[in-house]
Amino acid sequence: MKVAIIFGSKSDIDIMKGAKKALDEFNIESVAFILSAHRVPEKLREVVNGFEENGTEVIIAGAGLAAHLPGVIASFTTIPVIGVPIKAEILGLDSLFSIVQMPKAIPVATVGINNSYNAGILSAEILSIKYPELKEKLKTYRKNMKENFLKDNEGVEL
Amino acid sequence: MKVAIIFGSKSDIDIMKGAKKALDEFNIESVAFILSAHRVPEKLREVVNGFEENGTEVIIAGAGLAAHLPGVIASFTTIPVIGVPIKAEILGLDSLFSIVQMPKAIPVATVGINNSYNAGILSAEILSIKYPELKEKLKTYRKNMKENFLKDNEGVEL
Amino acid sequence: MKVAIIFGSKSDIDIMKGAKKALDEFNIESVAFILSAHRVPEKLREVVNGFEENGTEVIIAGAGLAAHLPGVIASFTTIPVIGVPIKAEILGLDSLFSIVQMPKAIPVATVGINNSYNAGILSAEILSIKYPELKEKLKTYRKNMKENFLKDNEGVEL
Amino acid sequence: MKVAIIFGSKSDIDIMKGAKKALDEFNIESVAFILSAHRVPEKLREVVNGFEENGTEVIIAGAGLAAHLPGVIASFTTIPVIGVPIKAEILGLDSLFSIVQMPKAIPVATVGINNSYNAGILSAEILSIKYPELKEKLKTYRKNMKENFLKDNEGVEL
Amino acid sequence: MKVAIIFGSKSDIDIMKGAKKALDEFNIESVAFILSAHRVPEKLREVVNGFEENGTEVIIAGAGLAAHLPGVIASFTTIPVIGVPIKAEILGLDSLFSIVQMPKAIPVATVGINNSYNAGILSAEILSIKYPELKEKLKTYRKNMKENFLKDNEGVEL
Amino acid sequence: MKVAIIFGSKSDIDIMKGAKKALDEFNIESVAFILSAHRVPEKLREVVNGFEENGTEVIIAGAGLAAHLPGVIASFTTIPVIGVPIKAEILGLDSLFSIVQMPKAIPVATVGINNSYNAGILSAEILSIKYPELKEKLKTYRKNMKENFLKDNEGVEL
Amino acid sequence: MKVAIIFGSKSDIDIMKGAKKALDEFNIESVAFILSAHRVPEKLREVVNGFEENGTEVIIAGAGLAAHLPGVIASFTTIPVIGVPIKAEILGLDSLFSIVQMPKAIPVATVGINNSYNAGILSAEILSIKYPELKEKLKTYRKNMKENFLKDNEGVEL
Amino acid sequence: MKVAIIFGSKSDIDIMKGAKKALDEFNIESVAFILSAHRVPEKLREVVNGFEENGTEVIIAGAGLAAHLPGVIASFTTIPVIGVPIKAEILGLDSLFSIVQMPKAIPVATVGINNSYNAGILSAEILSIKYPELKEKLKTYRKNMKENFLKDNEGVEL
Repeated sequence: MKVAIIFGSKSDIDIMKGAKKALDEFNIESVAFILSAHRVPEKLREVVNGFEENGTEVIIAGAGLAAHLPGVIASFTTIPVIGVPIKAEILGLDSLFSIVQMPKAIPVATVGINNSYNAGILSAEILSIKYPELKEKLKTYRKNMKENFLKDNEGVEL
Repeated sequence: MKVAIIFGSKSDIDIMKGAKKALDEFNIESVAFILSAHRVPEKLREVVNGFEENGTEVIIAGAGLAAHLPGVIASFTTIPVIGVPIKAEILGLDSLFSIVQMPKAIPVATVGINNSYNAGILSAEILSIKYPELKEKLKTYRKNMKENFLKDNEGVEL
Repeated sequence: MKVAIIFGSKSDIDIMKGAKKALDEFNIESVAFILSAHRVPEKLREVVNGFEENGTEVIIAGAGLAAHLPGVIASFTTIPVIGVPIKAEILGLDSLFSIVQMPKAIPVATVGINNSYNAGILSAEILSIKYPELKEKLKTYRKNMKENFLKDNEGVEL
Repeated sequence: MKVAIIFGSKSDIDIMKGAKKALDEFNIESVAFILSAHRVPEKLREVVNGFEENGTEVIIAGAGLAAHLPGVIASFTTIPVIGVPIKAEILGLDSLFSIVQMPKAIPVATVGINNSYNAGILSAEILSIKYPELKEKLKTYRKNMKENFLKDNEGVEL
Repeated sequence: MKVAIIFGSKSDIDIMKGAKKALDEFNIESVAFILSAHRVPEKLREVVNGFEENGTEVIIAGAGLAAHLPGVIASFTTIPVIGVPIKAEILGLDSLFSIVQMPKAIPVATVGINNSYNAGILSAEILSIKYPELKEKLKTYRKNMKENFLKDNEGVEL
Repeated sequence: MKVAIIFGSKSDIDIMKGAKKALDEFNIESVAFILSAHRVPEKLREVVNGFEENGTEVIIAGAGLAAHLPGVIASFTTIPVIGVPIKAEILGLDSLFSIVQMPKAIPVATVGINNSYNAGILSAEILSIKYPELKEKLKTYRKNMKENFLKDNEGVEL
Repeated sequence: MKVAIIFGSKSDIDIMKGAKKALDEFNIESVAFILSAHRVPEKLREVVNGFEENGTEVIIAGAGLAAHLPGVIASFTTIPVIGVPIKAEILGLDSLFSIVQMPKAIPVATVGINNSYNAGILSAEILSIKYPELKEKLKTYRKNMKENFLKDNEGVEL
Repeated sequence: MKVAIIFGSKSDIDIMKGAKKALDEFNIESVAFILSAHRVPEKLREVVNGFEENGTEVIIAGAGLAAHLPGVIASFTTIPVIGVPIKAEILGLDSLFSIVQMPKAIPVATVGINNSYNAGILSAEILSIKYPELKEKLKTYRKNMKENFLKDNEGVEL
């Protein structure tokens, strides 16, 4: 099980950490890359081609503004690509639209604005189709989430 | 390999056919359900619980307006859920936001507005992690897509 | 007279306090719950089912992002549900659309973004149909509001 | 049980019929008025004052563009006001914002764009607090809705 | 020459000061009122009726959220009403739409979001049709504005 | 009393007719011009300069897209300029924003999208400050509007 | 002088014809290509690389939805790229944002939604820096535009 | 090689510096002007006319709100005009729409919101058509950008 996490700038690290955090909870190996569809298109291609060889099974790509990164990666590979719209100008609507509105045949699985944690959980769900141990972990994770949620929020007062 | 396709009304059939069309191209079995998070919540729960038993590996859910269907399904299961925002009022922005902006821990893999075909392709990509024959088919599909695209569009004149 | 106030996270307490404040002004009993449509759907169902038994007459539900909570509650009960869109990403448009654009037959009475106080007042107005003493209190409240408004704002200078 | 349905122009009749249709299903008496906050403010005031006398228990108000009608009515009375944003220019966002974003203390219970049917159902839910027979009818309505939904949508094929 | 400046809350004073500032530059008398279409509708009506008697020639009205104030004033009088959308939630789009999208026959002259200064200048332009001395002052104002602009911004360096 | 109506293309005639219609109801003379801030800036300047000489007292300017016409006219004159946003792409939001969001000191009195009729009524209100006969006509117009409204809409049934 | 016009589908031909029409008016040679950043990324790269060799001086790229085409081309070359947002879903806002919001260092010169004609004129303006004969033609074009505009629109009546 | 950079206020200096910074990297001479389409239209015209004489080859214009500056400049000249939307109210959507949605025949080459640096790079790309030394510099710039990007971002860890 290996997930690649790609994003375009060091300034995105805080947002994208959530993806690694979620993957770590499931002991899914992840590797991070700062790469840009616009600045280093050849390197991006080369790295994505490498994924086909090295057994990377899911790609998470976060980007802001005219967020082409997830879609360009999806055009290079049939490994599932999860897109994380990063909020900068225009509330993240620019990146959301640039990621989710992909043309026919080249999908990007888009999660919420800045919500890289969910990209990690979605990766775990996707990988759990193949890896039964992940399926169990996801069920435990949900069970714990429920229990913790209820325990933490018992007896709230306004 | 089994994919469930769920949506809320017969009037969505034309939009949601694209998902089945894409799955058919990869010989992935699909079953369709009209179910509503708001009108038949118990039946929805029952059907989704059944998926955990019967080997459904991906769920595609299409919805419009305050499109809760994909998110509610995701709250019942750890099977990956792909959401298709259906355009009705407000250009589909209502359904897009209602599907993609999920809270932490319960992701929905959102594709473009009305773009159920891409939900089908994304299912195939996700399933290809487990099923190597699908990986090959996806590569052939892309190769054919490229060849057809180039053949169809050669020598265009404005 | 009993109103339930439900929301999804401790971080919403400051926003949701307004509902209790308004209800307190009319001596309407309220009980608060932190519950989530996505994280603890079974518990949510159980609590809402309890409302049918215990005489809860109005439900106020506040939620942000893909704000499914009010709509999901409305799908479980015919007790009137008042939805409060909470502002997070995208200015609260995501939660506003997710709450107000409900499908035919399952309404949510939506108030303004972050405006839980108005959810409380609306509850009082709704309950006043049955409880004549509330009708009187509402008239007094409006009368006082008017007098205070005029007194506070007399002789303003720019 | 009496509900007033107010809107600003004959051209809104088709949209607003839904409210009466829903109320009729519950045998709730309704009276319709074409009135405008901007064109006949005195008459509007007079009619709303009359509601306080004649036992009107809920007011449904539909309006488009800078949709002031529901809010202006709410400023005249403490009878609960349900607002229906009617879609004209700018997708109905103008009327949605003009109705839902009411200031502190004067709420309007807003339903979806053009969704006057839900204003009728919400009226029934509100009135059911006082009228137990309505509570029963609402439960039957939901039960029938569920059964019909399932019967109508059984065995769908894409 | 008399201009009334009306707005709904002390918290709007900083925004609305601009109107007085502009009017002062042309020695146009202005009187400020805090009044609300929703909280004190009778007082608002009474004050606006007074304008018809006391020679008020232009009304400036600033409001936020579901900004009904300018439109409601316009429904009471044929004195020209200038609307200032005040920015609160949703970037001021809610107040802009609520002010500008008035129905046929009851216009509000809308200026930019938070731009009460321009409401003052527009008042001066409107009044200058009747008062030739204002016409001269406006020409001088523009001339000075141009000279000051050029002097202040000469020789800029980046 | 003279009003100039300026717009950028023959295709806007249907929208802009409303302005003349309203002015005709008050016997206010109007002259129409097709002129463009971008295509014939010199001619536009020349025509607007002429207005200063020939007693034009109000200018109505309608424009779509990046609707600079009203603002550019306002930069040439201190005659009040009323802007009519014309709907083309992006629902008329482009023209609305381009007209209403003028910088400090150069206002445009903006009316609703495509609502040139209201630009005519606003002209009449503005001119009525100077011309008492217009004031009377406006009062009669409102009175008739109210009577016709009530007569036309009496006894509506849904 | 050579301009390449690239777009993603035969269905865009009607929109993109405007670019060729504008270029033809200035006798600028243009070649059209249907290419897609997502479907045939290798071919796109190859074609754009060819432009560097064959003297193509400006590239016009039109795209809809998540419109990556112009930005991806810009990442391959330092030839100026003009982007034309094509309207499909969400009013063309998706394509506008996806084209205009490029990251630092890789600009796309964006024109209006569906406005490929302006992409052609902008190409002529850009090329006129090098080719003095184009400068003259542009001046004549503007002069003719003005004369025709005035002749066509003389004596308009509403 | 000479580029003019025009904007409307000293408060825009920080945003517009990016343009000069980019031009400096290519040793392209630039001159800055604070000028306003609305406040000093005659001076603007005079300065732009001067550009036709003094060999200015590209004009960069930054503006906020109803950002008419770039379009008005474009109406005066056939020198290519690059527009930079500056973010103030409404997220910069007002200035973006006011700049990009130009009518047929008068284009403005629009770059991203606040992204004046890209206006500088686009100028360099445009000028490189005529000046081969710039073509080389642009290739070196891209090469360095790639190398620096890869060096700076090597071995990132989340």
